[in-house]
Amino acid sequence: MQTTFRFLVVLLVFFMCVPGVPAEQAPVSVSTQECIECHAVTHPGIVADWARSRHAATTPGKAMTVTGTALKVSSRQVPEPLRDTSVGCAECHMLRGDAHADTFEHNGYDIHVVVSPDDCATCHAQERAEYADNIMARAHTNLADNAVYNDLERTILGRSHHKAGKHMVFDAPDARTRAEGCYYCHGTKLAVSGTQWRDTDYGEMEFPVIEGWPNQGVGRINLDGSHGSCTSCHTRHQFSIAMARKPYTCMECHAGPDVPAYKIYAASKHGNIFSAKSDQWRFDPVPWTVGKDFTAPTCAACHISLLVDDEGMVINRRTHKMSDRLGWRLFGLIYAHPKPRSPDTTIIRNAAGLPLPTDLDGTPAKDYLIDAETIAQRRQTMQSTCLACHGTGWVDAHFERLDNTIAETNHQVRTATRLMETAWAQGHARGLDRGGSLFDEHIERRWMNTWLFYANATRFASAMAGGGDYGVFEIGRYQLTSTLLDMQDWLETRQMIGTPPAP
Amino acid sequence: MQTTFRFLVVLLVFFMCVPGVPAEQAPVSVSTQECIECHAVTHPGIVADWARSRHAATTPGKAMTVTGTALKVSSRQVPEPLRDTSVGCAECHMLRGDAHADTFEHNGYDIHVVVSPDDCATCHAQERAEYADNIMARAHTNLADNAVYNDLERTILGRSHHKAGKHMVFDAPDARTRAEGCYYCHGTKLAVSGTQWRDTDYGEMEFPVIEGWPNQGVGRINLDGSHGSCTSCHTRHQFSIAMARKPYTCMECHAGPDVPAYKIYAASKHGNIFSAKSDQWRFDPVPWTVGKDFTAPTCAACHISLLVDDEGMVINRRTHKMSDRLGWRLFGLIYAHPKPRSPDTTIIRNAAGLPLPTDLDGTPAKDYLIDAETIAQRRQTMQSTCLACHGTGWVDAHFERLDNTIAETNHQVRTATRLMETAWAQGHARGLDRGGSLFDEHIERRWMNTWLFYANATRFASAMAGGGDYGVFEIGRYQLTSTLLDMQDWLETRQMIGTPPAP
Amino acid sequence: MQTTFRFLVVLLVFFMCVPGVPAEQAPVSVSTQECIECHAVTHPGIVADWARSRHAATTPGKAMTVTGTALKVSSRQVPEPLRDTSVGCAECHMLRGDAHADTFEHNGYDIHVVVSPDDCATCHAQERAEYADNIMARAHTNLADNAVYNDLERTILGRSHHKAGKHMVFDAPDARTRAEGCYYCHGTKLAVSGTQWRDTDYGEMEFPVIEGWPNQGVGRINLDGSHGSCTSCHTRHQFSIAMARKPYTCMECHAGPDVPAYKIYAASKHGNIFSAKSDQWRFDPVPWTVGKDFTAPTCAACHISLLVDDEGMVINRRTHKMSDRLGWRLFGLIYAHPKPRSPDTTIIRNAAGLPLPTDLDGTPAKDYLIDAETIAQRRQTMQSTCLACHGTGWVDAHFERLDNTIAETNHQVRTATRLMETAWAQGHARGLDRGGSLFDEHIERRWMNTWLFYANATRFASAMAGGGDYGVFEIGRYQLTSTLLDMQDWLETRQMIGTPPAP
Repeated sequence: MQTTFRFLVVLLVFFMCVPGVPAEQAPVSVSTQECIECHAVTHPGIVADWARSRHAATTPGKAMTVTGTALKVSSRQVPEPLRDTSVGCAECHMLRGDAHADTFEHNGYDIHVVVSPDDCATCHAQERAEYADNIMARAHTNLADNAVYNDLERTILGRSHHKAGKHMVFDAPDARTRAEGCYYCHGTKLAVSGTQWRDTDYGEMEFPVIEGWPNQGVGRINLDGSHGSCTSCHTRHQFSIAMARKPYTCMECHAGPDVPAYKIYAASKHGNIFSAKSDQWRFDPVPWTVGKDFTAPTCAACHISLLVDDEGMVINRRTHKMSDRLGWRLFGLIYAHPKPRSPDTTIIRNAAGLPLPTDLDGTPAKDYLIDAETIAQRRQTMQSTCLACHGTGWVDAHFERLDNTIAETNHQVRTATRLMETAWAQGHARGLDRGGSLFDEHIERRWMNTWLFYANATRFASAMAGGGDYGVFEIGRYQLTSTLLDMQDWLETRQMIGTPPAP
Repeated sequence: MQTTFRFLVVLLVFFMCVPGVPAEQAPVSVSTQECIECHAVTHPGIVADWARSRHAATTPGKAMTVTGTALKVSSRQVPEPLRDTSVGCAECHMLRGDAHADTFEHNGYDIHVVVSPDDCATCHAQERAEYADNIMARAHTNLADNAVYNDLERTILGRSHHKAGKHMVFDAPDARTRAEGCYYCHGTKLAVSGTQWRDTDYGEMEFPVIEGWPNQGVGRINLDGSHGSCTSCHTRHQFSIAMARKPYTCMECHAGPDVPAYKIYAASKHGNIFSAKSDQWRFDPVPWTVGKDFTAPTCAACHISLLVDDEGMVINRRTHKMSDRLGWRLFGLIYAHPKPRSPDTTIIRNAAGLPLPTDLDGTPAKDYLIDAETIAQRRQTMQSTCLACHGTGWVDAHFERLDNTIAETNHQVRTATRLMETAWAQGHARGLDRGGSLFDEHIERRWMNTWLFYANATRFASAMAGGGDYGVFEIGRYQLTSTLLDMQDWLETRQMIGTPPAP
Repeated sequence: MQTTFRFLVVLLVFFMCVPGVPAEQAPVSVSTQECIECHAVTHPGIVADWARSRHAATTPGKAMTVTGTALKVSSRQVPEPLRDTSVGCAECHMLRGDAHADTFEHNGYDIHVVVSPDDCATCHAQERAEYADNIMARAHTNLADNAVYNDLERTILGRSHHKAGKHMVFDAPDARTRAEGCYYCHGTKLAVSGTQWRDTDYGEMEFPVIEGWPNQGVGRINLDGSHGSCTSCHTRHQFSIAMARKPYTCMECHAGPDVPAYKIYAASKHGNIFSAKSDQWRFDPVPWTVGKDFTAPTCAACHISLLVDDEGMVINRRTHKMSDRLGWRLFGLIYAHPKPRSPDTTIIRNAAGLPLPTDLDGTPAKDYLIDAETIAQRRQTMQSTCLACHGTGWVDAHFERLDNTIAETNHQVRTATRLMETAWAQGHARGLDRGGSLFDEHIERRWMNTWLFYANATRFASAMAGGGDYGVFEIGRYQLTSTLLDMQDWLETRQMIGTPPAP
């Protein structure tokens, strides 16, 4: 009796006094009620966050009755026991217990710490299926299982050792650095390494110890073997569609010089409208109505969201496989190239047999990449959104500029690569032909900068129709050409000195 | 009948359900009504945006009756036919048809795609006249018609060619790269190159093809010959004064290292107040009341806006010629110098005959620049705004610091230029005296960085009273002195090696 | 009578029409009333800002009656005459007149320009006492009275002189550059240098002239001898707790590459939640309730604020001595090291006798630094906040990563220092042993970058659990290892050339 009373008090505090909490609240399951009784005290932040969520406000059964484009629960087979209560602690953390290596007994319940996309698929089957086909779901394995990238990773994350007259040596990086470095965004591989007793407010308790945890990277390998993390974008424990539609979410991983999408957006006309006017927009409605709910696209509007016009006609269908709207891969590799056919990029081999989508001269490994027709079709899908506000002439000219910029930046990177090849051939640097790394010398890093940062940023500034300076003086063509000049100057200096350094 | 009914439905959807749409709506002209009937379906984003605008909520006739500082329509001669309907599609896109090279027949109307400042001048004559005298209106021609800047542009935007033992060669840049590079902000030169038939939802239609389009740069050359683009800041199709008053608008072109105004503002005390408190400010009122509407300046408050105190007394009059409040040109050139007399800077010649406002030793081309008295008078105008919140002692000390920083940064750039001159004189680099470019060698780019990025950012941090790190470690004095040391080190290395490289 | 009437009109304008002004207003003292009569006209921005403040809405007497964690006025001894009116102009600017060197006669009152922490201590004694023990209160003296830092300052802020075949020489920096450079954030030393007559709207008046003014740096030395400035964070004249709790305030000084805390926060999961959701949070309540008032921490939540759960239980007590929750000093020096024992760091000496907390090989000057037990205790204090939302496993793993990153980045900086030591030993650079500066050569700046920017940013990205790219490609491990390779390349080149340059 007392706990129920206390529970009600707790709920009242959260559900009535908290701004942003929906007035309506769905019935809470007995199990979840028991979770909340303790966790509202020990983890008040989480519980309050969840109380603001749609998961707390409705039930799967109710959500399944929605028809048409407003439907959020794509599964037609939500299990009966989950249908009539809110989606609370127990509903997710006790789902598919046998599948999770971190399932443990906790106050009489079998719960698991890490909820996975396959858990979420119980209600959101279509989104999960699409995401599995999204290259982001493979972000861990595509990095960890590629020998060239492993070498790159080692030279960035590994401990350095300087010895006179020798090349700098880098150790293999340790697990914690990897988790905090590349795999913060790419996702770690989780593994249960044992259990641990902890002294809690409610006595001694045993918990699993999970290697690679915490992590919310997009390609995380979970303890049920699934790939990905829905909470990368639908942040715990509100799992808010509004939040995923705002550019700040994408910024977590798309702000650095290797992928400065957020910064370019912020400095673009679209970003300006978002910053100045979005306090009058609505980020919650499903579907999302162009013009009525928002008047300039966010990242999600162009890449993911289901968009309709104010008569409810679909402008673009929702997709969690972002490449549905993207023909070209603009970043992360030496040259821009058509998107890979498979989300698993470890299978790609270029003419030289390396796991890279182009040769060093830019020739695409075309068997592994989408063809011109697919590029055209994806572009058309993207343009449906553009055309909701812009005329055909505007949109066509925009994409012609992007095509031109892809060609121009690829050309500049080819110049950089020629300089690099000269340095390797003349023995001023040690490349693959001499058993060296591509990434562990002064001049090789200059070369990397041309394609990893400057060509890349220039293409983003073009693709996103804005951020003028990002394509010129911020991190664009000025830095790209400056680096070409730096590389040439370095080579000239070494040639003047005459003798290549010791190997 | 049916279309009218449909039209009413469309309007109802927009005008009643959309957050931010003013309750009051003005009568719509028959022509505009016809535009909206199709475009609300094909371009719902644009129409909804316009529906939120002041242009949809009032009529020029009504706006002309406003007296005193609240007046927004500065023209006394708005043509009779425009006075009694809202300012809709037809009112702008069908204005002055004969003057526009892109005027074409469209469903029985002569419309033009690109609305120009001379169109806007129909109602906003004074703002347009002021802007014509603003150096920004000349941003295209001042860049495109200056031989030194053309060379700079070529070495940044042009295709590179590396040949062993030779200087890097850069081709003339292509039109699309230019439109996306420098001219994204400076504005393109528009030209009609032909017409094109397109398959639309309403059948085959013919449209003009416009080179240089899309573009919203501040010095765009329009198809009626006018210079500038009001939508650079008053973004289509709300043309909102609130948006132009927020710093995000200026950020579109003033965020890069060559002109990091936005970033410095964001890190300044003023920017902090804006970020933390502006959700309680009002950005719409005309005039704009210091203290009541806002408590810290945005870019517009200092540079453009009509400001009053709460008794309605004018603190600063509105100006669309931003230089009215600015005595010194802090960025973009080798040395800070007094503002040019004319917005057309292509006429400037320094002692060496180059189209630059100073010599390489910093001597100003004073015949082309404003005198000390004008500087003092403009400073006083700016200070009227400062003094609305700060005492005289505060304000005087601030400007003394700015003067000091102008002198100090000019001194540091002089050191860099001396190093550069030594490199040219000793044949380690190829300058103008040997028929070379100033901008296409490693060491020349280092020199450029001192004035284009670091001296410049340091001055902005000073001028905007904030952004401490922007004047020191972010992109300021630390980078400036580091680059001096880099230049000296490079010169020393070349001198030690002894032989200058092949020409 | 007339002035009173006018006064009421002025107040009505401010207090009724201004958004954000509390409905309730406290009685205004006669003196403050007289201040406002003129200053509402001459400085409307300040007065309106103050009218929005809690200082205008309540009285110390009333505030003192608050009990428990809601108490804001920590002094039990607020003088009787201040208790029953609002905290207005006169209450602060006329307080402790004899203590302030800038006290002057102004319309019959003795007022001082610069209000100091010792003035604020009249009501906020505990906060002031804590802040005095905060290393930030010593930010001026810790920099100005450290010979190594003075040398650093000179090589960054001083005028440069290039002479052929010589090292670059830097003059001692001038006072205005110092005030605008390092001391913008660290705080200037204020001094009255004389008085000045000024022509005002109310006739000729005499004012003190204050060197180092304006300034709001955290370690400012005030005209009553006190150290610090409450307005660094509690910006004049609202002195708003809400503003201090938002990250924009900290950003004023913590955004540059030497201390990129804000940027990392913005790109972290916590920052994403803040950006996307804080429009539904409450920033004013004291105490601040986790979950109810906010669902992700800001800078203040982790470092300063009094946090409670929704039952009012204290999660963390308020502290204005930020180091209470911090064991390690992650930035600003060559190696990360335990926090200094005393806020006065000028007393520190390493084994070589330099005023630095470690030797060049990383050995801590342990007599001056806190011990392992204190580190552990401070970490536990910090973790109380983490645990309000995260489980123990999550939190432990996070701090294990931070410890690992401290060790790893210290290792990489040790490699950089070894390279630097080789350059000094072989005569390719001039270090302390040859009477040189540590900071005035090309290669020394590369070395500085490894610890001042890259190791530092990498640690912040770790400590703040986010900003993935800030620890890798933005300003992290990639730049750190690239700089190691640059240093090695430079040394190799110099060794190949053979002869060290002239001294």
